[in-house]
Amino acid sequence: MKIVVALGGNAILQRGEEGSAEEQFAHVRSAVARLADLVARGETLLITHGNGPQVGDILLKNECAADMLPRMPLDVCGAESQGMLGYMLQQSMENALSARGIARPVISIITQTQVDPLDPAFSSPSKPIGPYFTREEADAHGAEHGWSMHETGSGGARFRRVVPSPEPLDIIERRSIGALFREGFIVIAAGGGGIPVYRTAEGALRGIEAVVDKDLAAAKLATAIGADILLILTDVPGAYLNFRTPEQRLVADVSVRAVRRWLSEGRFAEGSMAPKMRACMRFVEGGGTTAIITSLDLVEQALEGGVGTRIIP
Amino acid sequence: MKIVVALGGNAILQRGEEGSAEEQFAHVRSAVARLADLVARGETLLITHGNGPQVGDILLKNECAADMLPRMPLDVCGAESQGMLGYMLQQSMENALSARGIARPVISIITQTQVDPLDPAFSSPSKPIGPYFTREEADAHGAEHGWSMHETGSGGARFRRVVPSPEPLDIIERRSIGALFREGFIVIAAGGGGIPVYRTAEGALRGIEAVVDKDLAAAKLATAIGADILLILTDVPGAYLNFRTPEQRLVADVSVRAVRRWLSEGRFAEGSMAPKMRACMRFVEGGGTTAIITSLDLVEQALEGGVGTRIIP
Repeated sequence: MKIVVALGGNAILQRGEEGSAEEQFAHVRSAVARLADLVARGETLLITHGNGPQVGDILLKNECAADMLPRMPLDVCGAESQGMLGYMLQQSMENALSARGIARPVISIITQTQVDPLDPAFSSPSKPIGPYFTREEADAHGAEHGWSMHETGSGGARFRRVVPSPEPLDIIERRSIGALFREGFIVIAAGGGGIPVYRTAEGALRGIEAVVDKDLAAAKLATAIGADILLILTDVPGAYLNFRTPEQRLVADVSVRAVRRWLSEGRFAEGSMAPKMRACMRFVEGGGTTAIITSLDLVEQALEGGVGTRIIP
Repeated sequence: MKIVVALGGNAILQRGEEGSAEEQFAHVRSAVARLADLVARGETLLITHGNGPQVGDILLKNECAADMLPRMPLDVCGAESQGMLGYMLQQSMENALSARGIARPVISIITQTQVDPLDPAFSSPSKPIGPYFTREEADAHGAEHGWSMHETGSGGARFRRVVPSPEPLDIIERRSIGALFREGFIVIAAGGGGIPVYRTAEGALRGIEAVVDKDLAAAKLATAIGADILLILTDVPGAYLNFRTPEQRLVADVSVRAVRRWLSEGRFAEGSMAPKMRACMRFVEGGGTTAIITSLDLVEQALEGGVGTRIIP
């Protein structure tokens, strides 16, 4: 089967960790071991990944060096994170496959995602990103760079930049990615939701200050390349209704129609399970066979059924 | 014709510039315009690029943030620079081709280059990299991280880290890159000479603290994928004998045999023209038709002959 796997950025750099290359490589290797087992079963994989913690670190480094070097815009920081995480995933997958005696080419592709500069997200930036600032710093950044700042948490440094999270309209490299995927390459693409770009009036691509949701981008790509399954991996066994209440219950096999209704009723948290459910809904509505939300350690069982959340037509 | 082009990192971030994303994009666009003209003539291109100034900035950012975040090793920094420069080149090439009405897929591939951990370069690190330090800082880094430091220039901060520059043995992704190149993709690969990796006793790939010469890696890749021409672009019209002396003269068409002799006589500067000539020599000895050293603005004429330095069998 042709499977698009979306791996969380938090699965690679976990909260509370230092974030060294060794730590991140260790997490990547353990995630990739599970995915290599799927390849050993004969599945074709496209792997996409989040990049929130990694871009956060890149932005903090930019901030620390701001007296000496220009800050890089979000499109360039996203591209850097694709290079870094693409490398870690690719090397780890090559090693995992070779240890299993599987000769299958692995390739990481820098990927741009087209967004609409008139997307309403640009008039109400909502995605917190990068380091925390004091009120004075936040005011200065707002005045100097036009950043939108959002007050969050408590303490002295409690302001963060918020950026737009527009809808992914198109994956610019989808034809190349699709061709490689259909030829059986293990492709790593659309990292961090893809580098956000828009088309100018003349049709040229340009980077834009935004962040694309990685699950929505994964769904867009999965539909475009004709994947059978969209597999969204997270740190819980599946999607829950009434999450973290006494009435919490796991959503098992569910029709896309029920998901659509629940989403319209706001039954899932925005910034968390809602975009994952929305990605699954769109993939199945777009002709996909099954979309699955589960955790990495349940992935093989979830593909068989009976475990995790499976959205079906 | 199938051409591998090696673009200098200095062609994208020039000495004395601030190094903003806008500046780098402007240089990339002007370089890519020349290369898109070659595609319009019907050539198939693989573009590789240096990354010295860009990795220098990434290392400086790591240094500025070192109290808060772990430093990333050189393999990871190289991967970040491949993401950043791959994105800039890819977007600019897509725009340049689309402006010329050419529908040709462009793809940037994260690339690893295998080196030998027993390469003599590891016992005599020679390639200066990253920021300048004072003697006290240099001593501290030497003690804390085992860095080799080299005294250079003058002033208070005159020490730089030096790292090994081992021979490229193999381009790990060469089969995938070759397949795409032969299918007519415009491929961007092996940026910065490729991410330096070695094979453990068990055969696994691991990153290593080193920097691979981008021209030698380009030659290795060009041979592996069966390119006709290796085109090394620099900021002078060609290679010179007796460079910057009254007897300076441009090397025009020259046999690989003469180049080998001159190299053995030390007629070209190491760290500058010598590795470029060595790359050309290896490419032609490995079966390539012609290797060319010239500047970006002479590229079309150099392909016709009569301009630049052309190394032939």
